[in-house]
Amino acid sequence: MRPTSSAETFPANTPAASQVFTAVLSHGPLARLEVSRRVGLSPAAVTKAVRPLIEAGYLVEGADEEARPALGRPANLVRVDGGRALFIGVKVTGDEIIGVLTDLCCRVRVARHLPLPDRDPRTVLSGIAELVEQLLAETDGPAAPVLGLGIAVSGDVDRGEGTVRYSPFLEWRDVPLAELAAMTTGLPVTVDNDVRALTVAEQWFGAGAGLTDFAVVTVGAGIGCGLVVHGRVVAGAHGVAGEIGHVTVDPAGPLCHCGNRGCVEAIAGEAAIVRQVHEATGVRLTHPGEALALAREGVAGAREVYARAGEAIGRGIATVANLLGPERVIISGEGLAAYDLFAEQIRDAFVTAAFGSAAQCDVRTRPLPFEEWARGAAATAIQSFITPDTSR
Amino acid sequence: MRPTSSAETFPANTPAASQVFTAVLSHGPLARLEVSRRVGLSPAAVTKAVRPLIEAGYLVEGADEEARPALGRPANLVRVDGGRALFIGVKVTGDEIIGVLTDLCCRVRVARHLPLPDRDPRTVLSGIAELVEQLLAETDGPAAPVLGLGIAVSGDVDRGEGTVRYSPFLEWRDVPLAELAAMTTGLPVTVDNDVRALTVAEQWFGAGAGLTDFAVVTVGAGIGCGLVVHGRVVAGAHGVAGEIGHVTVDPAGPLCHCGNRGCVEAIAGEAAIVRQVHEATGVRLTHPGEALALAREGVAGAREVYARAGEAIGRGIATVANLLGPERVIISGEGLAAYDLFAEQIRDAFVTAAFGSAAQCDVRTRPLPFEEWARGAAATAIQSFITPDTSR
Repeated sequence: MRPTSSAETFPANTPAASQVFTAVLSHGPLARLEVSRRVGLSPAAVTKAVRPLIEAGYLVEGADEEARPALGRPANLVRVDGGRALFIGVKVTGDEIIGVLTDLCCRVRVARHLPLPDRDPRTVLSGIAELVEQLLAETDGPAAPVLGLGIAVSGDVDRGEGTVRYSPFLEWRDVPLAELAAMTTGLPVTVDNDVRALTVAEQWFGAGAGLTDFAVVTVGAGIGCGLVVHGRVVAGAHGVAGEIGHVTVDPAGPLCHCGNRGCVEAIAGEAAIVRQVHEATGVRLTHPGEALALAREGVAGAREVYARAGEAIGRGIATVANLLGPERVIISGEGLAAYDLFAEQIRDAFVTAAFGSAAQCDVRTRPLPFEEWARGAAATAIQSFITPDTSR
Repeated sequence: MRPTSSAETFPANTPAASQVFTAVLSHGPLARLEVSRRVGLSPAAVTKAVRPLIEAGYLVEGADEEARPALGRPANLVRVDGGRALFIGVKVTGDEIIGVLTDLCCRVRVARHLPLPDRDPRTVLSGIAELVEQLLAETDGPAAPVLGLGIAVSGDVDRGEGTVRYSPFLEWRDVPLAELAAMTTGLPVTVDNDVRALTVAEQWFGAGAGLTDFAVVTVGAGIGCGLVVHGRVVAGAHGVAGEIGHVTVDPAGPLCHCGNRGCVEAIAGEAAIVRQVHEATGVRLTHPGEALALAREGVAGAREVYARAGEAIGRGIATVANLLGPERVIISGEGLAAYDLFAEQIRDAFVTAAFGSAAQCDVRTRPLPFEEWARGAAATAIQSFITPDTSR
């Protein structure tokens, strides 16, 4: 138990102060006037919000040496002191736990992996505790305390309750993970769906920074989607949102684990690709990498499986664009390893199925290493720390 | 020109004051404490926001006579004085203009229809001017001035610019309708997409009141969808959003006017139904009502067309639910006339295609008369009046 870590609270108890801090975190260093413009507050209100944050050491202000004018003093810029506080992010997959130690600006200092012998919640919890202990050993002492732990899990996660309601990959139902992990580690814990966590990291520190409406589409074992609408991540009234993997592409297509036919995931998910490449080539496959190798070698039928997967993903993205009109769609996930085999089909299917000016949406890929998912979890912990309200 | 009408501005120039007024408008009469709870402001801030609104006559406060306690004074309730200001809403269809005069609470006082000889913007503008003139004649004089005109048009409408960018039904491109109508009528004008306008009315005064996340699906000549996410109507970064009509149901299905195959609209839109019933029965049809009559009479093949339409609509709604997880989906539009013929299929297809707890979404129908679309337009005018920011 490390009660000292959780004792510190963020000295910004107004929505204005959280907004100011978030703006500097995502876009800083910024001049105060620029902060004022971005958050729509008066310069006086910004000054009032900034003061306690500077006093507590979360923000620092100093001359902008890079933009020194020919005459007169350089402008003062406000920036986050990243080293003021640390956070831990953990992503739980079916066979390992990935943990990162980040600073307050969500920059990764250390990343560690721990294999999971099984998926029992007790095994996972003791693995998380071990990983957290290892990462805490990397910190510099009380000057930069660890102030929160974020855990990202695939499936239906209730962030407000801190509960994993249903995770098909882990085969968990109703696990009060936040409470259990807080007891084990002594840290304040935020639990969120892994795609939503990645989306938070993209919103604050990645390709979504500055956008109010965008989507992150993850391609891999599952096909997921994190949505930011009106500046906030969509969670769904009943815990389900962003299920692009279950957009129907072809009602006569292959059966999906959800019970329907021809879902994007039933055509473009990792297991679906392995199965279809096996069916097309007759080669026995034990790993997605083998399917990819066959397609790259040009084995008849294998390449077509990837082409159809790309078409399905492109149609799914067009559906998101037609319904929500995001400014940008960021495609990521380990499935991007096959990007050369389906990029063109994603693009073509998207443009064909996008309605009118929805085709103007900026669809781009962004290969993110697997640690990025753990970084997303750390971002949710930072979010909970600086804006307590968003945890519900 | 009626410059007197547009001279009055709303005495709530802070976001807090707009929030307070909107809460009382949607949920009133309310005790001040209840207002405070709903908008998350301190009682002192509510008092500060309420004062100028009472002074200007937009809000009134009085004893709650219905809830008089056995002892002591009854609680004071704040309500909107609906008669304090009037608004006009106009919906333009392919063959007529429908106009309503409403009070500040969006209650319809008079509704009028005007046939359209053609769809030329000049014809439509002079029709709008005539209808507005007729509705202005129904007002009571300066005590209840008309403070805004809302115009709802189907297609790609840029509300911020006041421009109809593209309306397939009207065959318009880049018509600066707000500016033209303001010159013709002398009123401040808000122009919005018709489905979004209907969604605003549902959000403030209808089945969406109190919900932060819901969808309105309109079934008729087109299949449209208005989305409210995080409490605000989704407009789309490029002007396109809510295009449920172009969700693909069957890539081998009938050709859609958008160029794709098997869109919801290509199966369940009015023209598609008429064409399919004609194909199935061989009967020459000139009006959707005739297709409906054949199906009701049990003519072989006609009923199946409606069943497939219901299935397509249900799948489209499931796609919305899987991506956004709304609390409620409200189905409306003139196509509800056939509801007995496809209600079951909508429900079944929705439940089958909804992913996990997305199936808990409350899907309900709400037959809205055609005037309701004009009322939606009036709601956008009220919205522009009381929260100037939302017009962009």
